[in-house]
Amino acid sequence: MKIVALAGGVGGAKLADGLAQILPPEDLTVVVNTGDDFEHLGLTICPDLDTVCYTLAGLANPETGWGRAAETFHVLENIARLGGEGWFKLGDKDLATHIERTRRLRSGESLSQITRDFCRAWGVRQVVLPMSDEPVRTIVDTVEYGELPFQEYFVHRKCEPRVKGFRFAGVESAKPAPGVLEAIGQAQAILICPSNPWVSIDPILAVLEPSAICHRPSAIRHQPSATVAVSPIIGGRTVKGPAAKMYAELGITPSALAVARHYGSRLTHFVLDKVDQMQAAEVENMGIQTLVTNTIMRTPEDRRRLAQDVLNFISPL
Amino acid sequence: MKIVALAGGVGGAKLADGLAQILPPEDLTVVVNTGDDFEHLGLTICPDLDTVCYTLAGLANPETGWGRAAETFHVLENIARLGGEGWFKLGDKDLATHIERTRRLRSGESLSQITRDFCRAWGVRQVVLPMSDEPVRTIVDTVEYGELPFQEYFVHRKCEPRVKGFRFAGVESAKPAPGVLEAIGQAQAILICPSNPWVSIDPILAVLEPSAICHRPSAIRHQPSATVAVSPIIGGRTVKGPAAKMYAELGITPSALAVARHYGSRLTHFVLDKVDQMQAAEVENMGIQTLVTNTIMRTPEDRRRLAQDVLNFISPL
Repeated sequence: MKIVALAGGVGGAKLADGLAQILPPEDLTVVVNTGDDFEHLGLTICPDLDTVCYTLAGLANPETGWGRAAETFHVLENIARLGGEGWFKLGDKDLATHIERTRRLRSGESLSQITRDFCRAWGVRQVVLPMSDEPVRTIVDTVEYGELPFQEYFVHRKCEPRVKGFRFAGVESAKPAPGVLEAIGQAQAILICPSNPWVSIDPILAVLEPSAICHRPSAIRHQPSATVAVSPIIGGRTVKGPAAKMYAELGITPSALAVARHYGSRLTHFVLDKVDQMQAAEVENMGIQTLVTNTIMRTPEDRRRLAQDVLNFISPL
Repeated sequence: MKIVALAGGVGGAKLADGLAQILPPEDLTVVVNTGDDFEHLGLTICPDLDTVCYTLAGLANPETGWGRAAETFHVLENIARLGGEGWFKLGDKDLATHIERTRRLRSGESLSQITRDFCRAWGVRQVVLPMSDEPVRTIVDTVEYGELPFQEYFVHRKCEPRVKGFRFAGVESAKPAPGVLEAIGQAQAILICPSNPWVSIDPILAVLEPSAICHRPSAIRHQPSATVAVSPIIGGRTVKGPAAKMYAELGITPSALAVARHYGSRLTHFVLDKVDQMQAAEVENMGIQTLVTNTIMRTPEDRRRLAQDVLNFISPL
């Protein structure tokens, strides 16, 4: 079964890794959010793309979920000593990625081409694609500061400002990266990973479904048989990240149900945690099949088990 | 006694450090060659400037003379893994300098301003100035490959190509950096450090004496009382670097005398090693006072002793 997974950072990377443990490499394409990308220290940083690649390569830091394992921070410590910005924690191994990527982007290569070469160098056998080669930048509108670039909100201000809304600068002219539409066209299922719906998945959907925001026809021409989402909200909270806080600040009670409503009629299938099983009936009432299972991924084995549950859930197709 | 030292990389940095051990910080200005600067990995690298600053800050690698002490190479190893260029050995601490400098240069700050701030952060109390804020790039004309950018010749091709000549691209429009002329105007002596005359000192002289290469009046208006050079050629060889090889390839027997002739009428004083004492008379015949002493600097104490010898030599002024 060919799967296209839509993923943000840590949560998406974990489920993608679970799928990678089961599927033949050629059957998994991961389309990754680039709305979090930003320019920092003069370098182009792609946090979600790197988290997914490092995770699939077995290079990710198992404690944080992002960054590299056995990492050092000599460069950043010395940049801070020079008065430079040290608030975004970039390790030495990780910086190699940003330096080489930035150099190649400046020389005119595309992000998807560079990502393909990096994946080969890291031994990632699945296809990992940025959602677009054109820059899309998530802007968070906040009560306290007005609009903030995503990483300014997320890392520098630690998600403390209250959100009022989001926009994805550049999305109007951003086309899906080469290979994205082809992969969707050949896939039996699209899997929306347990990533932040507002700032990890919505940017990808905005690129794939531009008709929602402008008058370009939707890029998803061949609707796969199934579109399944795994709720990142468990018992009204997230394992990591501000998705629940964002729902609350936008006046929506954070819940698995809210996530199902968020994706709405796109979904044929929805996976929610056992602690939220009371919400399954209401999701079913939306015409969406549900699977109630344990969705928390603490270990690599958890990732594999959840991926297997999802595949079994949609496999009757 | 206020001194302006003209310096290239390791040899210049060592003598500058000797002077710094003796003189009050405000009495020493080091004007550093930037002809070796280059763009690499998308970063602006200033090897001589960094060697001088690291040495004065006590941060230099005592074994190599360049780079940082207790250095790691995690970034470069990972760039090489990605297929990027690994031939120029940039350590992690060192890369912090290049990343932060490149970011600030791109934001429009000048190299001399950035260098001043970096020196403050590193605890360097002497004034270190790039020869110019405008880029000057040393080009080595070679028998085998024609013109090569300096680092391509120096590091990548290990000084193996035979040289035919040099040019300093951009020097026609490069002005001395702010502070250079003021320091020379206030100095009792200019000290030409034992750096490579062809590729470390000549670029500085070309910026200070543009009348030699174009029709701009010489920037050295207030000739100091003394201009003293320390020969980098000892017994026909160099401690480090290709200066002797360059003299030979250009048809000049490498010797202290050849160095004295190289700088010619600029010099009032010249320092040569004991092994070359037979050449002193011929230098004296040029109307240049000579000091014969031990010029090899193996230890920090050697640096201090040579600096003291030079200061005593010119101090009757």
